[in-house]
Amino acid sequence: MAKVHAMWQNYPEIETELAQSLALIEDNIHTKNQAVTDAILKMISAGGKLLRPAYCLLFSQFNAVDRQKMIALAAAVETLHTATLIHDDIVDNSNLRRHQESIQARFGKDVAVYAGDYLFVVCFKLLANYASDLKSIQFNSQTMDQILDGELSQMTTRYNLDLTPEQYLQQINGKTGQLFALSCFIGAYESQKGLKFARQSEKIGLNIGLAFQILDDILDYTQTDVDFGKPVLDDMRRGVYSIPLIMALQSNRQTLAPYLEKQAAMTDADVHAVQGIVRQSGSVEKAQALAQDYTNRALAGLAKLPDMPAKTTLQQLTERLLTRKA
Amino acid sequence: MAKVHAMWQNYPEIETELAQSLALIEDNIHTKNQAVTDAILKMISAGGKLLRPAYCLLFSQFNAVDRQKMIALAAAVETLHTATLIHDDIVDNSNLRRHQESIQARFGKDVAVYAGDYLFVVCFKLLANYASDLKSIQFNSQTMDQILDGELSQMTTRYNLDLTPEQYLQQINGKTGQLFALSCFIGAYESQKGLKFARQSEKIGLNIGLAFQILDDILDYTQTDVDFGKPVLDDMRRGVYSIPLIMALQSNRQTLAPYLEKQAAMTDADVHAVQGIVRQSGSVEKAQALAQDYTNRALAGLAKLPDMPAKTTLQQLTERLLTRKA
Repeated sequence: MAKVHAMWQNYPEIETELAQSLALIEDNIHTKNQAVTDAILKMISAGGKLLRPAYCLLFSQFNAVDRQKMIALAAAVETLHTATLIHDDIVDNSNLRRHQESIQARFGKDVAVYAGDYLFVVCFKLLANYASDLKSIQFNSQTMDQILDGELSQMTTRYNLDLTPEQYLQQINGKTGQLFALSCFIGAYESQKGLKFARQSEKIGLNIGLAFQILDDILDYTQTDVDFGKPVLDDMRRGVYSIPLIMALQSNRQTLAPYLEKQAAMTDADVHAVQGIVRQSGSVEKAQALAQDYTNRALAGLAKLPDMPAKTTLQQLTERLLTRKA
Repeated sequence: MAKVHAMWQNYPEIETELAQSLALIEDNIHTKNQAVTDAILKMISAGGKLLRPAYCLLFSQFNAVDRQKMIALAAAVETLHTATLIHDDIVDNSNLRRHQESIQARFGKDVAVYAGDYLFVVCFKLLANYASDLKSIQFNSQTMDQILDGELSQMTTRYNLDLTPEQYLQQINGKTGQLFALSCFIGAYESQKGLKFARQSEKIGLNIGLAFQILDDILDYTQTDVDFGKPVLDDMRRGVYSIPLIMALQSNRQTLAPYLEKQAAMTDADVHAVQGIVRQSGSVEKAQALAQDYTNRALAGLAKLPDMPAKTTLQQLTERLLTRKA
C-alpha cells in the first residue's frame, strides 16, 4: 500500500483514511499497458502531501456519515489533482515531479497523455459510484472547468512582464484555489450537513488554496531544488511568472527586464540573479503578507465552524501550511 | 452554427437535432485562451459524420422524451468522441484530421492536451446537467475506461507482426465499439424505455461500432488520402496494424515482413507495396466479410425493435455504413 506523507503521523484517524483512499485509487488502476499502470502507481505512491483529500475528509467529520463513501470521494479529489499534474508536466516539459522523474520525462508525452486521461476516468468513476447525487458531479465538472481555464489563461500570459497581481490571483484561483474549494465542499456536502455549511466550507477551502499556492510560489525564491523536489524557478524560463517576481517587477523592472527578456535562453546565472533581485526587493515579504491575508480569512472562517475535534485539526493544519519549508 | 454533414439531408428531423447538439457544444466552449477556443470550435465544426450523436438521438425516439435533454446527451457523446480524437492525434503525431490540420499539428501538443481535457470537461458538464440519474454517468465512465484501455492496449502491440485478429477485435471494441454502444445505450436508457431495451440497444450499437471500425480500416487499403481526409496508411508506419494487414500477414508474411520491419523508416513506395500485397492477398474481401458479419448482427438486432419510424431510419443508416466510400 502507498505510504502516507509523514506530516499526517500526528493525525492517526486522517492518516488511516488517507491510506485507505490511496489503496482505493491503486485498486482502480489496471490498464492493459503495464508501462502506464506502473507509471501511474509510481506517481500515486510518490508521497504527495494529500492535502486535498485530507481537507475533504476533515470537512466530512462534522456529521456522522458512511466513511467508506468519504474515503472514495477523497480518493476522487486526489485522482483529479494527480491527473492535472501529469498533463501539466507535458505542457511545461517538466522532468521532475514529487522528487522523481515525471511521467512525460520517463515514458514520453504519449504515455503521459493517456495516463492523465486514465486518471480523469478513475476520478469520474469514483464520483459516479460514490456521490449521493448529480449535484456533486455538477460541482466537480465546474471545478474542472475552472482548473483548466486557469491553466489555459496562464499559457496566454507567458513572458508577460506586465502581468498584474490580479491576473496572477485569477490564475491561481483556477489552478489551485478551486480544487481546494471543491475538496472542502464535497467533504461537507456529502456528509449531508446541508448546502449552507458546504458553501461555508467551500469558501474556506478557496482561501486555503490561494494561501497555499502563493506560499508554494514563494518557496521557488527561498528554497533549493533538493528541498523542493522540482526544479526551482524553471517556471521562470518558461515565462510563468509568480507573485514574488510580479511584485518585484513593479519596483525593479529596469534591472529585471534584461534577464527575463532572454526568456527560454536564461542561464542559471541569470535565473539566480533574478532570484537575488527579487529577494532584495522585499517582494518575498510582500507575498508572504498576501498569503497571510488569505490564511487569516481561512482561519476566520474555520473559527465560525461548530466546535468539534475536526475543527481543531483544521485550524492546526491550516496554520502549519504557512510555516512549511517545503 | 456548425454545418451538419450532408449525409443527414434525407433525415431532416435528425439533421435539425444534430445541428442543435453542435450549437449546444459551441455554446459550452469559451476558455480564456482564444487559440484553444478557436481550435476546438474549428474541429467541432469541421464536419464529422456525427454518427454517435445521431445513433443516440435515434435510439431515444422509441419513447416520448424531452428532446432538449436528448440533444444535450447526444452533444455529450460527440464531445467525448472529439476529445479522444484530439488526444489520439497527439499520441499518433497525426497532422490531418477531418480534412484539416489537426490541433496538435497547428497549435502544438501543449494546446492539444488542454483542448482535449477541456472537451472531456464539457462532456462531463453536459452529462451532469442533463442525465436523469447517476447511472448514465456510471455507464459513461465505464465506457471512457474501455476506450482508454483500447488505446493503451494498441500502444503495447505496435510493430507486432504476430497481432491476432482477436487482439485487433478487442482493441477496436474499446476504441470504437464501446462509444457506439454507449451512444445507443444512453439514447435508449434516457428515453425511459426501460433497462432491457437499453441493453438491447447497447448490443446493437456495439456491433455497429465494430463493423464501422473494420470498414474504416479497410478504407485505408482502398482509398486515397484525398478521399479519406487523413493520411492513408500512416498507421502502418506507426506500427498500428489493422485487420486487412493482420489477415494478409497470416498468408503472406514472407513478402510483407521485409517492408514492415523498416517500421517508421518505411518509404511511400514500401507502404504502397504493402498496400498492393494486402489487396492481392484477398484480405480486403475477408475483412469486408467480417464487417458484414457484424452489420448482419446489428441488423438482426434492429429487426427485433418495435416498428416505429426510428427503426426504419436505423436500418437504412446501418446498411449505408457498409457501402460508404469515405
